[in-house]
Amino acid sequence: MASPRVLVVAGTHGNEVNAPWLIEQWAVHEELIDACGCVVQTVMGNPEARAVGRRYLDRDLNRSFRPDLLEQSATHPERCDREMLRALELLGEFGPEGQTPCDLVVDLHSTTAAMGNCLVVYGRRPADLALAALVQSSLGLQVYLHEADAAQQGFLVERWPCGLVIEVGPVPQGVRRHDIVQQTRLALQAVFEAIADVVSGAASYPHQLVLHRHLKSVDLPRQASGKVAALIHPQLQDRDWIPLLCGDPLFVSAQGTTIAYEGPDGAIPVFINEAAYAEKAIALSLTSREEWPLSQDWTEALALLLNRT
Amino acid sequence: MASPRVLVVAGTHGNEVNAPWLIEQWAVHEELIDACGCVVQTVMGNPEARAVGRRYLDRDLNRSFRPDLLEQSATHPERCDREMLRALELLGEFGPEGQTPCDLVVDLHSTTAAMGNCLVVYGRRPADLALAALVQSSLGLQVYLHEADAAQQGFLVERWPCGLVIEVGPVPQGVRRHDIVQQTRLALQAVFEAIADVVSGAASYPHQLVLHRHLKSVDLPRQASGKVAALIHPQLQDRDWIPLLCGDPLFVSAQGTTIAYEGPDGAIPVFINEAAYAEKAIALSLTSREEWPLSQDWTEALALLLNRT
Repeated sequence: MASPRVLVVAGTHGNEVNAPWLIEQWAVHEELIDACGCVVQTVMGNPEARAVGRRYLDRDLNRSFRPDLLEQSATHPERCDREMLRALELLGEFGPEGQTPCDLVVDLHSTTAAMGNCLVVYGRRPADLALAALVQSSLGLQVYLHEADAAQQGFLVERWPCGLVIEVGPVPQGVRRHDIVQQTRLALQAVFEAIADVVSGAASYPHQLVLHRHLKSVDLPRQASGKVAALIHPQLQDRDWIPLLCGDPLFVSAQGTTIAYEGPDGAIPVFINEAAYAEKAIALSLTSREEWPLSQDWTEALALLLNRT
Repeated sequence: MASPRVLVVAGTHGNEVNAPWLIEQWAVHEELIDACGCVVQTVMGNPEARAVGRRYLDRDLNRSFRPDLLEQSATHPERCDREMLRALELLGEFGPEGQTPCDLVVDLHSTTAAMGNCLVVYGRRPADLALAALVQSSLGLQVYLHEADAAQQGFLVERWPCGLVIEVGPVPQGVRRHDIVQQTRLALQAVFEAIADVVSGAASYPHQLVLHRHLKSVDLPRQASGKVAALIHPQLQDRDWIPLLCGDPLFVSAQGTTIAYEGPDGAIPVFINEAAYAEKAIALSLTSREEWPLSQDWTEALALLLNRT
């Protein structure tokens, strides 16, 4: 039985500085994280953007892994944005068909929103859901299922057979905080332990996966000119994961006028006031909290992936 | 008696987005702030940097007002960084000898550090100290006296006869928060009221100004290579303005080793973990809390400035 080959990516966004610090420290102090028998490759996602302290140079690297864009870029590299070239480079090096192929990827992110320590999974790939269930069972963290969002596509982890995002916040862009680093470390450690347990046959799955399924994203109110007309209401700020009721305050104008949430009770907001989503016209996203019974399809898919020979 | 001419600058740093929002809203909703009879000019400090969401393009605009740099730049504009040109432009438009001269400037900033709502004064100019004393008396906020710091020079407000920085945090770069906007509004309102009171002769000065005088800045611990070796300790994070005692935890390494503060009891940390100061190798600054009796020199200097005819 071969060892699972895991790619750990830090700094996919160049102004998210906590995971890169963790990974650099881990390179020097190997006792920081126990890889639990995995063969680990670590890589800085976007070193050029990191060098200048920006999320990206030309385009968001974590929206650049759309198959159609990758194909176009491979055909015409001379016309490519720098992030498209970087996406091709990462796949060429560590992709499933790359020089040093990896089976599974963990992409480490931080957010200015009060998301705590959580996982993001993209779509409903069985192996992702199995791994997320194990990590949730181990740490009790929230899982955000991002799917069916035409405006946001092309995430890095989607190009590997299995992949999770670890998302930790709140922390400003460009600020390293020990607590954020520690939470990232804990979650990454839990991923390695889950993988090792699957490989050894000791994995103890929970009965269900509790996830927050993406419903839609909500923009700030805007004037006819397109200018922002109100901000996140103070009673909503920092209340990620807490259900909204119809009539709850959502936004507030500079003069103090409140704009209320008008939708079904129980929608759960995430990524409230994430700095990087302003340019994407996302003030928050709404999700539906769901309990999905664990499926044998999930556990089998993950076991099959990790027990390849 | 002429009306006081006040310049209000927002967005001197292009990724500090709360004051620009406030100023734009004020332009549309004039009841937001009462200028109390002042003739107010508002301006975006660094609109080019703001357009791309960065602190600056070529160099920190708020370190570009050094007289020697300004003189060089005026002599050789063709060799200038964009921020040096912008500094000359702002002075040409609103400086004491500019087209629309202003007597007094308020420069609005935000910080990722937990500084609350506070004022920064640069040096010991009597009129600045008088104005700070009135605003402190009105709102109870902290005042940081920045002086004797050879590494940090050339602040915008220094080029006007009187000027204060309003500094509000914590807020991530690129994030607008209603509470931060409101605190900025309150402080700016208090400045206008203080000016109006001086002009009308109704100013009621406190007996003293409590200020935090800059002692020195402290960098993160570094390896011989220059790489950062530890982060701000969680017990120090967000504890701006709270006195340090010898032996208090200051930094922590990735492995959990604590580095303690070794200095005199009572030094007071400010700007702990400000994102933008990482490139300046400043993890925090230390100050001395001092109570300065109000001086007649101060109040006379401010009255003289504001009662010019």
